[in-house]
This record gives sequence, C-alpha cells and structure tokens, in this order.
Amino acid sequence: MEWEDLARELSQQTDSKIVLLVMDGVGGLPADGKSELEAARKPYLDGLARNGVCGVTDPVMMGITPGSGPSHLALFGYDPLKYQLGRGILEALGSGVEVGRNDLVARGNFATLKGGLVVDRRAGRIPTEENARICEYLNGRLPKREGVEVRVFPGKEHRFVARFTADGLADDLTDADPQKEGRPPVPTTPLAPEAAKASGIVNRFLDDVAEVLAGEAKANAALLRGFSKFPSIPTMQSLFKLRPAAVANYPMYKGLAKLLGMEVIGVGGQTADLFDALEKNWAEHDFFYVHYKRTDSTGEDGNFDAKVAAIEALDPFLPRLAALKPDVLVVTSDHSTPSALKGHSWHPNPFLLVSPTAGADDVPAFTERTCAKGLLGRFRSISAMPLMLAHALKLQKYGA
Amino acid sequence: MEWEDLARELSQQTDSKIVLLVMDGVGGLPADGKSELEAARKPYLDGLARNGVCGVTDPVMMGITPGSGPSHLALFGYDPLKYQLGRGILEALGSGVEVGRNDLVARGNFATLKGGLVVDRRAGRIPTEENARICEYLNGRLPKREGVEVRVFPGKEHRFVARFTADGLADDLTDADPQKEGRPPVPTTPLAPEAAKASGIVNRFLDDVAEVLAGEAKANAALLRGFSKFPSIPTMQSLFKLRPAAVANYPMYKGLAKLLGMEVIGVGGQTADLFDALEKNWAEHDFFYVHYKRTDSTGEDGNFDAKVAAIEALDPFLPRLAALKPDVLVVTSDHSTPSALKGHSWHPNPFLLVSPTAGADDVPAFTERTCAKGLLGRFRSISAMPLMLAHALKLQKYGA
Repeated sequence: MEWEDLARELSQQTDSKIVLLVMDGVGGLPADGKSELEAARKPYLDGLARNGVCGVTDPVMMGITPGSGPSHLALFGYDPLKYQLGRGILEALGSGVEVGRNDLVARGNFATLKGGLVVDRRAGRIPTEENARICEYLNGRLPKREGVEVRVFPGKEHRFVARFTADGLADDLTDADPQKEGRPPVPTTPLAPEAAKASGIVNRFLDDVAEVLAGEAKANAALLRGFSKFPSIPTMQSLFKLRPAAVANYPMYKGLAKLLGMEVIGVGGQTADLFDALEKNWAEHDFFYVHYKRTDSTGEDGNFDAKVAAIEALDPFLPRLAALKPDVLVVTSDHSTPSALKGHSWHPNPFLLVSPTAGADDVPAFTERTCAKGLLGRFRSISAMPLMLAHALKLQKYGA
Repeated sequence: MEWEDLARELSQQTDSKIVLLVMDGVGGLPADGKSELEAARKPYLDGLARNGVCGVTDPVMMGITPGSGPSHLALFGYDPLKYQLGRGILEALGSGVEVGRNDLVARGNFATLKGGLVVDRRAGRIPTEENARICEYLNGRLPKREGVEVRVFPGKEHRFVARFTADGLADDLTDADPQKEGRPPVPTTPLAPEAAKASGIVNRFLDDVAEVLAGEAKANAALLRGFSKFPSIPTMQSLFKLRPAAVANYPMYKGLAKLLGMEVIGVGGQTADLFDALEKNWAEHDFFYVHYKRTDSTGEDGNFDAKVAAIEALDPFLPRLAALKPDVLVVTSDHSTPSALKGHSWHPNPFLLVSPTAGADDVPAFTERTCAKGLLGRFRSISAMPLMLAHALKLQKYGA
C-alpha cells in the first residue's frame, strides 16, 4: 500500500480549512552572515513560527534542485519522481494556454529555412510582437483538417506553443527538430504504434506552416519539441476529498493547480489581491493554495535586497490570514532560490505549521537555520499534505 | 535488497539482551502549555533519557494515525504498509481467541431473523452474559461436520468471533451480512476459486446456527464479516534470530506478539506484574517486549490528569528494569494518544535508547519536545528494530 492508496482510503471530507501559503523560492543563503529571511524584518511571520511547529523540507530528495513543477507537485502530495510533467505541458501552462484531456501540446520555435536547410533555428530571434503577428496569421490561414484543431500561441521572441486537439492523440513522438543548423528539417516519428495518428497530424502541420509562411523573410518554418499530452494524474478531490482552490497570479501556477483539479482564482499582481481573493472565497473551499511569486523572482535576479523587501512586503498581510482562523496554516516554499545562486537550489525549505492540534515548539523566527531545529525535523515535501490533512482531522485511522 | 532480506542475512544470535518497553499512547499534546509527559513527575524516566540517546518516531509515515496493529508491527521491525492484519484476526486476537495457521476467523453479530428478513442486525444488543450462554449452547449443539471444527467465542453484547479450522481454507470471501435491516440474510461468496471450500463451510454454519437457535427470541441468526486467515508473516525468530518474549496483560497485544512468534508471558493487571514476570523470565529470552497499557486508555478517555498519573505510576519500577542490566533498553510508544484528542494520533513518539554502545546526548527529559532534539532525530518506527539489534551487537556487517 502506498501513500496515494492510503490517502484514498483514509481521507474524509470535513468542514475544517487548510491554507498553504507558498512563498516561492523564499529559502536563501547568507550574505554578510545573514540569509534573506534572516535579514528581513517580518514580525508576523516570526510570530507564526513561535505559535506553531517548524521544520525544513526537501522537495524531491537531498541535493536535488527541482523546477517549479516537481516542487509544487510534492507540496500538493504527489510524488515528483512518479509524475513527470512534459516540457510541452509546462510551457503551455506557463504561457497560459488551456490544455484539455484531448490535447497534444509541444514547444515550438520559428526557424529560417533556406535551400531546404534550417539555417537559423531561432529565426533571428524575431521580436515578440512579430511572433504574435505571425501566430495570428497562422491561426487564420492554416488549412482546416477533418477532426483536427490546431492552434499556435506566441511566446517570447521566436518561441511558441502548438496545441493539437483530436481524438486518439498520443505523445510518444520524437522531436521535429534537427538540433543543429545547416541540416534539413526532420519530421516527427512515432515511438509507439498508438502515436502514428499524432505523428501524421504533426507532420502535415509542419508542411502547412512552411506553405503558409513561405513569404516570410525569417520565420518561414516551425520546429517542435517536447510533445506532451495532458498528464494522467489523479485530482486532489479524488485523492484527498478536498474542495481545493488556488489563489495565484502567474499562469504556470494557475495551470498546475488546474491540472490537479483546483478551482483557480486568478488575481492581479498586487500582494493585497491574494488576501482579498482568499477572504472573498473563504466559504467555498476547504483547501487554499496561495502563491506569492516575488520572493522567487527577486532571488532569480540575484537581488538580495529586493528579496528581503519582498519578504517584508508580504509580512503585514499575515494578520488578515490569521484572522480567517484556518484549522491548519502552513507557510513554506516550493524550493529555495538563494539570490547568491540566481536560481532554484537544492537547499531545504523552512516550513511552519500552525494548528490547534499541533502545539508549539521553541523556534523563535521563520528562517532556514531556526526551522531546522524545529519539532518537525527534516522531511520530504510530499509529507506536507498528510501532515496538513492530519492536523485538520481529515484522515481516519489506518488499521485497527 | 530490502530490510527483511538484510535482517535475515545479517542477524546473529548472541547472549545480549534487549528490552523494549512500550508505554502505549504516551505521546500527547500540551494543555496549559505542558503535555502529559511534561507535566508528569518521572525522575527515573528522565534519568534514562539523560543516560541514553533520544529521538522521535513516525509509526507509519508522517501524518498517518495508526491502529495498534500497524503501530506495533512497525516497532517489531515489520513494514506496516506491507502486512495488513484483517479485522477478523484482530478481533479474534483482541478477544483472546487462539488462532493457528489452519484457522479462518470472522467477526460475528447475533441478529434477529423474522419472516425470512433480518429485522435487527444486533439482536437488540443482548446482554453480554446472554451472549456467553448462547455461544456455549451453540458450541455444544452445532452438528459435527467431517474434517471441520467450528467454535464461537462471545464478545460484548451481540458480538462474537467465529473460528473455522480445516485444511485448505482461504479468506477471499464476501461478508455474510445484508448491511441493512429489512433484508434477507446473505450467504458469503468466494472471491477466488480457492475460497470455494471455505465459502461452503461458512454458509453451512450459518444455516446450522439458524436451525440450532430457532427457539431464541432475539439472537436466532448470525452475520459474519471480515473473514481472515492467520496472516502469512515471518516470525521474529526467522527474521532476527531472536528468542523473543512478550510481557503483556491485554489480549490484543498478546495475540499480536504470538502472531510474530513471541512467547507470551501473560500477566495480571498490576504494574508490578510486568516487572515480576520480566525478572522471572530473564534467563530464557534475549528480547523482551513489555507492554504498559494505562497511558493509552487514560488518553483515550481524554483524562489528562489520569494519563499523567499513569506515567508517574510506572516510573518507580524503572530501577528494577535497569537493575537487570539489559544490553539495550528502549522506552517508547507505539503511537501517540493525546488526551486532548481522546484517541490515537499521528504525532511522533518520543523514543529513548540506553546501551553501552550508544553514548548519550544532551536530552534532559523524556518528553515529545526534548526527544525531538535528540541525537537520533526523527525516524520511522520500523527503524527501531535494526537500531536495537545493532546496539545489542546482533547485526553483522553488510558487504565487505
């Protein structure tokens, strides 16, 4: 019996409410002796740490730096080594492209074809606006094919997402990309018999693109990589009997949440928007995932002071969260993003849990080093969900 | 290679002795700032914590509340997600019914049958003494069937345990229970071809019961649920080369111990009885499981003060335990039973280990919060057995 089977068997719907506040990438590294969390003035966050129990989490396993996909999956109780989300699906979700169960998506590049050879795999990195114009043109001119719907969605510069909708598509397909310049375009090839239909549709699309864009100076062909279907992943309703909601601003996180069956409450880019939406939708759900992005983006920028400021900017809103009196409140991160490393890292995430069923330890502040000495110890992020469900009294006893 | 294979390969019989004292459900939650263990005066227990190394354990995994079966299995070195004990077997063990490898057991209800319909699934909750009379009557009157032995054992009110002894019985059987009143009785159905024999025997028994009890006003039929065979689980002798003994008072724990090959030393309900039995049998065994129940039952009652008193009542006996000079002494719990929750919980168990091969950490007392900072950290209960065997020098080196 594994965790998912246990969850299905033991979870029960109750009126208790859980809030999971993800301060994306909040864990960091010391500069001049203090990490971003140690340097920030954040009285409310530290107060929560004092009122609850703390620990640190490894998103995948010690030493592994996760992308946003696996690290969020783990926090939501899904094994990030079992469920691998294709690059195409993540690019699509990240671009705000809706993906359904009948869709096949891929990451695309516009490229330059000359004399039958791909001479520039990025079409001279055409401007993003140019890309938007070309995608619109393509969507209007691509010939209609019986039972198939194709749409392209512009990304930055030469990048786009292609979405194919039809019955019976599979994603066991090789990349349609010569990888190096000076080579002829390559069609996709099915890696399994059931992908033959998809392969035919994709290759006909590539021919159609070359025909429709023949007059373009630079972007006159398409390359496609990372074909992915909507992943077959159980919903949080089916696993945990939750009525989950996601309060988030960025497409990637909204898309991921939707994939898992959460109702997505889209919000504006202001920090207050998160808490307005939470209050407004409080009655409708029993699990709220609230995503705060700025701690990650400032870390990615390598801007220590801006990351400190991002932490301090969130802090004053926490009393609004506490005022809702959730039965379980967790504040943590999906992964660390030390500004010293300008990117995601493998360092464990500080984790705090406040609940009437949790008691309190003696952790005085919400930081990497203090949380590591908390009552919860060090654990994998996938244990966050059983822990939250347990403290919300949403899990029945295992065995007699 | 998994733990069980490792254990078989590496374990060796030695003269060293291990004592595992289980203070059932001892872990709790703070009330007025202090948990039961924090409130109790227990100088000897705290002295053991100071002389040994401490940690906290998760019986199954973080967040999962276990029953007594899975949580004890884990402490004895068995994966509680691999070995699942059927309800019938636990009910039988809990009622003190002996179960052997050829036995099939089930939980039973006496019910009231009228006009071919089950009109009361609990036979009006007949008194326990009435139940005992009916079981004795049944055991005397049930017709003998070739190669089959059937016995019923009374429980509380309308409940009983049925035990079928014959060659070739299997437990893949549906419940013989209409679940709702106003329906006719349902026979059991085999879920696998090898359960056909058992199904026939059980259904004939149900008919026999109805015939023998036809004159009863209320309890004139039987319903059966949770058919279970003696689980196929390796003994502690075969896995660990131990000569194990269980010193316990309650049937459930004695039954479980027997299932794993322990010699059961039944004792009276006084705390002193545990230590008398331990001293008396000290020479005969190299592993002693000592079960102290009162910390759990007071927790289940939600009686904080009584649970504190139960801890304090055990404490003065600990010097007798230490005087035996076991090579390894572990004091821990199977699961937590906070009186605040009036039941088992998912909170980790304080764990202490005293051994000449263990050294000491700086944990000053045996409590949930102090043990969480001990040298052993946080680990799953299934690691307790390798740890005890190792400190008793009963495990050889793995690999060259």
